Formats: sequence, C-alpha cells, structure tokens
Amino acid sequence: MSELELEFEQLQQNLPGWVRASQPCSAHGRVAAYIPELSKAPGEALGIHLIDAQGRTLTAGDSSLSFTMQSISKVFTLILALIDNGEKKVFSKVGMEPTGDNFNSMLKLELVRPGIPFNPLINAGAIAVSSIIGGDSPDEKSSRVLQFFRKLAHNDSLDYDYEVYRSESDTANLNRSMGYLLKDNGVLEGDVDDVLDVYFKHCSINATCADLSRMALVLAFNGTDPITGENLIPRRYVQIAKTFMTTCGMYNASGEFAIQVGLPAKSGVSGGILSMVPGRYGIGVIGPALNAKGNSIAGVQLLETMSQQMDWSLF
Amino acid sequence: MSELELEFEQLQQNLPGWVRASQPCSAHGRVAAYIPELSKAPGEALGIHLIDAQGRTLTAGDSSLSFTMQSISKVFTLILALIDNGEKKVFSKVGMEPTGDNFNSMLKLELVRPGIPFNPLINAGAIAVSSIIGGDSPDEKSSRVLQFFRKLAHNDSLDYDYEVYRSESDTANLNRSMGYLLKDNGVLEGDVDDVLDVYFKHCSINATCADLSRMALVLAFNGTDPITGENLIPRRYVQIAKTFMTTCGMYNASGEFAIQVGLPAKSGVSGGILSMVPGRYGIGVIGPALNAKGNSIAGVQLLETMSQQMDWSLF
Amino acid sequence: MSELELEFEQLQQNLPGWVRASQPCSAHGRVAAYIPELSKAPGEALGIHLIDAQGRTLTAGDSSLSFTMQSISKVFTLILALIDNGEKKVFSKVGMEPTGDNFNSMLKLELVRPGIPFNPLINAGAIAVSSIIGGDSPDEKSSRVLQFFRKLAHNDSLDYDYEVYRSESDTANLNRSMGYLLKDNGVLEGDVDDVLDVYFKHCSINATCADLSRMALVLAFNGTDPITGENLIPRRYVQIAKTFMTTCGMYNASGEFAIQVGLPAKSGVSGGILSMVPGRYGIGVIGPALNAKGNSIAGVQLLETMSQQMDWSLF
Amino acid sequence: MSELELEFEQLQQNLPGWVRASQPCSAHGRVAAYIPELSKAPGEALGIHLIDAQGRTLTAGDSSLSFTMQSISKVFTLILALIDNGEKKVFSKVGMEPTGDNFNSMLKLELVRPGIPFNPLINAGAIAVSSIIGGDSPDEKSSRVLQFFRKLAHNDSLDYDYEVYRSESDTANLNRSMGYLLKDNGVLEGDVDDVLDVYFKHCSINATCADLSRMALVLAFNGTDPITGENLIPRRYVQIAKTFMTTCGMYNASGEFAIQVGLPAKSGVSGGILSMVPGRYGIGVIGPALNAKGNSIAGVQLLETMSQQMDWSLF
Repeated sequence: MSELELEFEQLQQNLPGWVRASQPCSAHGRVAAYIPELSKAPGEALGIHLIDAQGRTLTAGDSSLSFTMQSISKVFTLILALIDNGEKKVFSKVGMEPTGDNFNSMLKLELVRPGIPFNPLINAGAIAVSSIIGGDSPDEKSSRVLQFFRKLAHNDSLDYDYEVYRSESDTANLNRSMGYLLKDNGVLEGDVDDVLDVYFKHCSINATCADLSRMALVLAFNGTDPITGENLIPRRYVQIAKTFMTTCGMYNASGEFAIQVGLPAKSGVSGGILSMVPGRYGIGVIGPALNAKGNSIAGVQLLETMSQQMDWSLF
Repeated sequence: MSELELEFEQLQQNLPGWVRASQPCSAHGRVAAYIPELSKAPGEALGIHLIDAQGRTLTAGDSSLSFTMQSISKVFTLILALIDNGEKKVFSKVGMEPTGDNFNSMLKLELVRPGIPFNPLINAGAIAVSSIIGGDSPDEKSSRVLQFFRKLAHNDSLDYDYEVYRSESDTANLNRSMGYLLKDNGVLEGDVDDVLDVYFKHCSINATCADLSRMALVLAFNGTDPITGENLIPRRYVQIAKTFMTTCGMYNASGEFAIQVGLPAKSGVSGGILSMVPGRYGIGVIGPALNAKGNSIAGVQLLETMSQQMDWSLF
Repeated sequence: MSELELEFEQLQQNLPGWVRASQPCSAHGRVAAYIPELSKAPGEALGIHLIDAQGRTLTAGDSSLSFTMQSISKVFTLILALIDNGEKKVFSKVGMEPTGDNFNSMLKLELVRPGIPFNPLINAGAIAVSSIIGGDSPDEKSSRVLQFFRKLAHNDSLDYDYEVYRSESDTANLNRSMGYLLKDNGVLEGDVDDVLDVYFKHCSINATCADLSRMALVLAFNGTDPITGENLIPRRYVQIAKTFMTTCGMYNASGEFAIQVGLPAKSGVSGGILSMVPGRYGIGVIGPALNAKGNSIAGVQLLETMSQQMDWSLF
Repeated sequence: MSELELEFEQLQQNLPGWVRASQPCSAHGRVAAYIPELSKAPGEALGIHLIDAQGRTLTAGDSSLSFTMQSISKVFTLILALIDNGEKKVFSKVGMEPTGDNFNSMLKLELVRPGIPFNPLINAGAIAVSSIIGGDSPDEKSSRVLQFFRKLAHNDSLDYDYEVYRSESDTANLNRSMGYLLKDNGVLEGDVDDVLDVYFKHCSINATCADLSRMALVLAFNGTDPITGENLIPRRYVQIAKTFMTTCGMYNASGEFAIQVGLPAKSGVSGGILSMVPGRYGIGVIGPALNAKGNSIAGVQLLETMSQQMDWSLF
C-alpha cells in the first residue's frame, strides 16, 4: 500500500474522532448576526469534506450543511480578475501585504499612501477586485463569476442565496463607505453600487463542504481539476492565490493559522473554511460559530488537529 | 469721543494698509481645485467687511467678491440643529472635542468608540448635524436652512450657487464614504443621499463678506441682531457656536489661530472666514488662496495683524 | 454696592451649597493609583479656594488638602520656557494644536511629521518643554522652576513631595519611552534622564488650593500679581498660557470643558484644577476622584455649576 | 544524473549571469546610513553563497563581503528563546501576526491591546524576545547567543563587530523608546538597558554569505545540520521560524516577497538576506543598497529571478 493510501486510511479512521473532539469548542464562539439569515445557522455544527485526486471523498460531522461562501469567494474572484486583467492591472488596485487590522478596517486606506487596499482578501481589497471583473454590466460580471465558480466546483446547480444577497445589500453601509473611499482614492472602477452588487452576489453563492473541497482541489493541483483533467486556472494565478491564502486568508489571525496549521486557507463569516493539502486534498469545512477574529472556532481547531497529526504544514 | 469711536476710527485708517500688507502672502497659498467652480476664484484676492452694532461698515480690498460659504455654513446649521433638537440630541450625534486630524479624516470614527464625530465642525460632524435638521424632506430641510441664513444675513436674496452644488454633489465620494460610515455607526439619521443633499446645499450658499459680517454680528451680540433688535438665536446656542469656533473653527489649525488671533472664527474652502469681536464687530473675510491646512492664507494673516494691533484676543 | 461686590457676596452665599451639591458625584470617579502616594488621597474630598484682586478669599469644602501639582505645573513650566527661550524656540519644540488623543498618547509623534508634540500640555509636549528650561544642570533647572512657582504662589515654603517624586521617577517607563522617541525625533534637548528628572520634580511640587488660586490670579491679571502689584510674567506669555488652557487644558475633555464651563483651566492627575475668571478671580480646586479622561469628576462639576450660575463663560 | 544533480548544474551555470543581471538595480537603492559603520558598505555590491546537504557550495559576485547580521539574527534569537522558554512563554510576549507597518513602528503597541508586539521579527518583537533569552546576566545571555550562532554557522570565529555594536548602542533612542513602552506594557522582562545590550550585540554579529547559508541550511533540513548530522534545533521551532520568515521576514514587504519569491527569508538593514530552499539549499545574499522597505534591492531581485527560474516557490 502506497504512502498516500496509508494516509487516506489513517484519515478515514481518525476524522470522525477529530470532529467530535473539536466540535465542543464551538460553544466558545458566536454565529454572525449582522443579517438574520446568517444568525439562523446552527452554532454547534461542525462538518468536513475532503476529496483527493481520484475523486475519493471523506466526510464527517454536519458536512451536508449548505451555507453562503462569503469571503471564501474572494479567492476565486481574485483569480478571475487576474485572468481578466493580468497581474499588472490587478496589483495597481490592491497590494500584496497582510495588514494586521480587522478585515473591515479602513484605517490604512487613509493612513498609507497611495490608498489602495493592502491585499485582495480584506473587504476593501475584494471590493476593488470586484470592480475589475470582466463584463459589460453588473449582471454579466456576476454571471461570469457564477459560471466560473460552477466550473471549479464541478456543480452546475451552484446558485445564489437570494435572501442573503438582499440582506447583505440592505445592510451594507460599511461596505458602501469603503466603496466610496476607494472611489475617492481612484482605486474602484465604475459605479459603487454596481460594484457592490457584484460583490454581494459572489459573497452570497451557496455551497456545501463538498463544493468547497472540489474548488480547493483545483488549487491543490495547480489549476487543473485532477479528476476531469481539465485545466481551469493558469498555474501562476493559483500560486498567487495560495500565497495570499497563506499570508492573509484567515483575516488578522492568518499569521497564527500559518504557525498552527500551515496550510493555505480562506474563511468566511458564515463559518466556512476552504483549505487544501497541496498535491493531495481539497478540503471544505463548516462550523458557523466564529471566534473573535471572525473565523470558525471549531473549524480552525479541527484543521489544527488534522495538520499537526498528519504533519501537513508547508513549513 | 468714546473708546469705541476711537477704535472705529483707528480701524478705518489702518484697514486698507493692513489688507495691502497681508495680500502678498496669498502667493504662498493655493486655490481649492477639487471642483472647477472653486478653482476659478482669483487666488491673489483679499477682501474684508466689518459691521458694528450701529450698522456702520468698513470695507477694504476685494470685499465685493461673492463666494460659496462651504464650511462656514456649518456654524449655522449646528445652531439650527440645536434649535430644532436641543443640546442633548445634538450631542448624541457629535462630540465637543477638537481632533488634531484633517477636516475630512475618518480615522477617529473607526478608532474611538462610540464612533461619533468628535465635533460638529469637521466634515463628518457637519454631515451628522445635517441629518437632524428639522423638516419632512430634504427640500424642506434645505429650505429651512436657507431661510435661517437669509434672516441672519438680513439678506433675502441669499441663494445657492447651483453649479457649485452640482459639482460638490458629483464629486462627493469622500463625503459619501463618511455618510455611510456614520450610518453604519448608527449616527446618521435617514438616507445618506438625502442628508448629503442638504449638506451640499448649505455648503453652496453664495455670500459676500458683507453677508458673513452680518451673520457674525448676530453671534457677536449673543443672538440678537443689534441693528434690528430682533432676537434670532437663543444665547446658549450662540455660546456653544462661539466656543466651537474658538476650539475647532479653523480645522486643525484652530489651536494656532487661537494663539495668534484669539477670536471665534470659521473658515471655508472657498477662502472665506467669518469672525467677530464679541460685543463689537461682525467680520467677513475672503482670500481664495489657501494654506496647507485649508484656511485662507492671506485672510488668516490679515486677522492676525488686526487682532494683534487692536489687542482683540479673548485671552 | 458695585457689581463686583454683589458678585462676591453671591459667591460667598452659594459656594458651600454648590460644593455640597457637587461632592457626591465623586463617587463615580476613581483616584489615580499608578503610584501608591496618589492612591492614598481621599476620593470623596472636594474643596475650592478663590482669591480676588483685593486679596479677599473664599473657601469651601476640603480646601486645606495638600496635593502635588502634576500636570497643572505644565502651564507654568511652559511660561518659564517662553521667558527663557522666546516663542520661536518653544514652538519649534511643540505645536499649538489640541490632539483629541489621550494625554499620554504617542500616536501622533509617529504619524504626523515633523514628530513634535502637538501642544505643550500633553505629556510629550511638557517633556519637550522641560528640556529647554534654562539652567546648566537638572538641579539648577529644577531650582529655577521651584523659585518661579514660589513667586507666583507668593509662598516661599512651596516644595517637592519627595516621595511622589521618587515614585514617579521609578514608574516612569511610559514617560521614558516618550522621552526617547522625542530624542529620536530630534525634539528633546539634552539627556533624557536629566530632562525627566526636571519633569518629575515640577510635577511633584506640593500645593494647596490657596496656592493654585494665587498662581491663577497672576494669570487672571495678565501677569501682574494684583495684590503686590509685581509684574511676574510678560502679558503675551500669559495670553499664550490662557489660550492653551482653554483649548488643551483639560486633556481630551478640553472641548467639553470649554462648552460647559468656558474658563481657562488646567487639571492634574492628583485631582487638582487651576482655573480663573479673567480680570476677577484666581481659583484652585481639589477633588481626587477622576473621571475617565483624568479630570477631577467633582471638581469639573463644581466649576460647571459656578460658571453657569455666574455666567462666567468667555464665550 | 539525478534531478538534484541537474538542478545543481543548472544553478552553477546560471548563477553568475543572474548576479550580473540583478546587480545594476542596486543603483536604485540606498545604503543604510543611521550609523557610520553601515554607511561605508559598498552600495553597488551583490554576492551570493549557496550550500547543499553534501556541503557543495556555489558562490557568485561579492560573496566574500563581511557584514553584521542585524535583523537576520532575530530568527535565531527567537529560536533560542523558544528553546529556553517554550512556545507558551514566548507567545505571551509576542504575537504571530504580520503588521503591515514599518519594522520600527510603535503604533500597534498603543492601539491594539494587550500591547504585545505583533510578531517576533519586527523590532519591538525582537526586543521582547531578547528579554527572555536564558542567562543570569546580559553578558551570559549574549555569550549563549553567540555560541548558538557559531554552532549553527559551523564557524567558531563568528564574533561581534564592536564598532557597529557601540554605534547601535549610542544611537538607539528609538529602540530605547520601544523598550520602555514594552516595559510599561508589562511585556519586557528585566532592565531595558540590559535587554537592549543583548539585542544590539546579536544584531552586531559579523557574518559572510557563507555563514548565513550554513545557518539557513540547518533550517532547510528541519534543525539538523545535514553535513555533520548533528541535531541543533527541535523541528517544531524550525517550523515556527520558517513560518515567520514567510509571513513577516521581509518587513512590510513580506507579502510581496511571498508572492514573487515564495521562500522563507529574513533580511537585515546591512543588506544581508538569509533564505533557503527547504530540503535542498541554504542561501546567503549580500547587497547593501536597500529599497524603501529596508530590504536589499538587488538581493531581492536576485532571489526573485532564481526562484522563478528554478520554480522554487513553496506555493
């Protein structure tokens, strides 16, 4: 039996126990409540789905839960913006640096010239990125994003949660504030409301852990879906995405996640985490109760256990 | 001849010379250029108009110039908001402290809880104040503001500069950003665009130095127009306004102005300054070239000369 | 009976009642506890001492309490530095602007070039000022300060509280941090420890409300002690001091104090407040329990009552 | 010929050319000048030294230059502090997050509670780490550091540049300011001057590219010197060090370095860079001319070329 086979077997045996052991710490977290739809999520839930290059899957806990991708989507809109515009244009709109600030902070937009967001995974950066997705109208842009996500997830039924989309849009004052500041700084292209429409829509795409794991699998294999063999993303853009996931993917707890887990990952306020073991697995996790930095508290615990037990850190 | 008569005579003799002496420093300033209408103002101009309780006036330099009130209007919308809402409500929306930051800074809205603007004379504070002017619609609010200003200036033909209003409104991304941040912080009431419409309109009211001086005269006499004898503002609200003009009226150069001039004053980005000698004169100044802090460079110089020569400092 | 006589009589009748009415709010404050000597002060105490130009005094409450001057001393070291160096030199070391930040904040020293303290009454500014007091050694500088204070207070027994001085000096890490940052910014002259020695010493000068009131009286009469007729401070420097007391004297509650009280004042962390009615009274107040901004909670309440009842606001 | 052999040959052939191609961009950088010793370094120089597990070396350019380790030393004092204290203690003194701020910024120490440095590789963090190196006196601590560095570099003659040490110590106001702020925040243990003495000493250890490469080799092989077979560092602490080098090793250009180079690295103000290809090479680079963020401008360019040509990114 090959090393990979052994590892898969080891995972199969241990995953349910690891989930059971991590689940209780969800009690120390809180479900996001800024819109009613998010607050209804089951705070005690924890689920995980893995997929490997042969399409074999492992699942444990509440993995059937469906949730909106929220900030997880930012990884893939960044990739689409890179495909549409190239590196030079994208990096005229956002920087490459972690900030140490909250994900929705606007401080550095005022304090640090030239006033572009420090990276594409904080809110301000993702809004700037959404403004340069290709397409003649907000609807066309959104449609291109959705098609791209469906291809990556190998799931044509991927769609918006329209209630979440409407709620986000209705309670979006801080994002609107950021949008107009970016506009004033000369960063955001087009109309602020149009850009935010694209942004809210991709944040509201509904997915399961299985969807996340398949999207992650494409990144884990440098842009090629190893199951279909189809090349979906140029390798350099996957590299950029994985680097950002490592340095900035878990908000201002990214440094700690790198030390304790050491895998590229991106979290969302719904409690989802997309992660991967490069060259091996795509991973999707859901655990709606969040810690103070906005990451799934039990989800982070689970990934930490897995990475340390399996010795998965990149470092 | 009374002391006041002597002072008036001394002013009459010296004013033209003081204006001539201060005017050249306009060469070191720059006319505001963020909208085309402002950039057309004559940068080298400097004019002043004084009025006393008997209605006697003194004028020198380019005092016939007409300009938009811009931030000068904020003193009077604050007063109207106090009349409409009382102190308690107003000071739940804005604080009483100078900030040391630029007039359009948003830093403290994020850094210092509860996220209300530090005072009503910085942009964020004035926007918050505009949101609680009485009236059932933006138009009604604006109309009430204009009527109030006309009464204070004793000039029924006071009106908007519609081109400035439209330009402000079209280039208002930073103000919009502030508006939405205030909305998110729970400070701004009503619709952001509606509030900004009221805000841009009162900033776009056209005036001359004579208008400013008459409005200032009412403040200099604790709310009563000494010429008509009409009481226009409760005294306590005048006191509040004069205090803010002293601590926060000249943006983040207010401290320096207090040390060097020592009179309540409020400047605007068009180069206007409204000031007063309490119990004696209302003063209007125009000098479109601004210093780095956004105040009329020659206007400040002129007021400094006058205050030091006449020993007018409150302190 | 003259207006002044009437006012004095009115004060005499009402002062005990106002003190009794203000005293209970000391229960909502907290005595400074960063050094043991300060923490021993009686938190519920409240006392006041007034003096007029004829040397008549009024006193109420716990006015015999003795306490260290702390930040109140900064007004007079600023004046001495002005006498020793002139305005130009002093204002190359400190600015003239309120900051809106805590009294011991270092943010603006890093954020706002050229990195000089915003004003001489915040800690960083007072340390910078202490570095340019005239004298060949720290001891000589301190001795000159003490002599100056004794003259102003008309009290030759004014002296240090050596225990407070030693405690301040021993727990001075934040002030040392500021000193070295000022040194690095090229602001502080001489050796940091030497400068801090001067600074801690003048903060540790012991005084009573009577001492504060006499020092304030000199400021209230533009630099001349009206009782002895001796001119102690050039009038321009008194003007500068009174202006700073109005815009920056009560830490980052100075704006509110200006609105609610409207008198020049300076507070200290021991609970003392020096204030004045220009042209009329010198005032010393003690109330060791502090509010969140570091000002005597009952002392501010008392001055607010007095100013509003007597209509004393400058504005 | 194995893949590794092929790679080594490819490196051997190309290295001189890559150095020649990268060297000219040193003209756009500036040699550090805050102490005279550093300013004497040849700004146009660029050198590199690689070593592999068999002890084979490659060298090109001005690789014989000797320079002080400066911030590069912080990686290894962190490791020694981990060995001496364990993770729990170390991470009570410093966090794990990149800051986005300059390496000598003090902002977050005031703004973000609990006021511990965000990570051990910014100046404040490295000072905090130096305070918990084991040893009964500053000299003993420094001696332990030097012994540890000698072992890692397999070079018993590694020693201080005493002139640099003295100059650093004499011009250390900003570091002293940080030290006292950390003391005030309760982070720094012991006497500030003692801690800074340890800190300046390890920053002043003299090394060549060969020394750096050998130290890096130990990290590239998870703590075991592959040439001697000796285990020098527990693997977990190497992992921590490599993670920090990836997320925070190049000051506030670490994110960009991760995107463009993708290797763990640490730079110093002398122009040195220590980097590695995990499992393959230890790398030392010197190029004294720095870019605006404080990293060797030609050194970064050279590593970028090498990593992209050899496809070395971890991501």
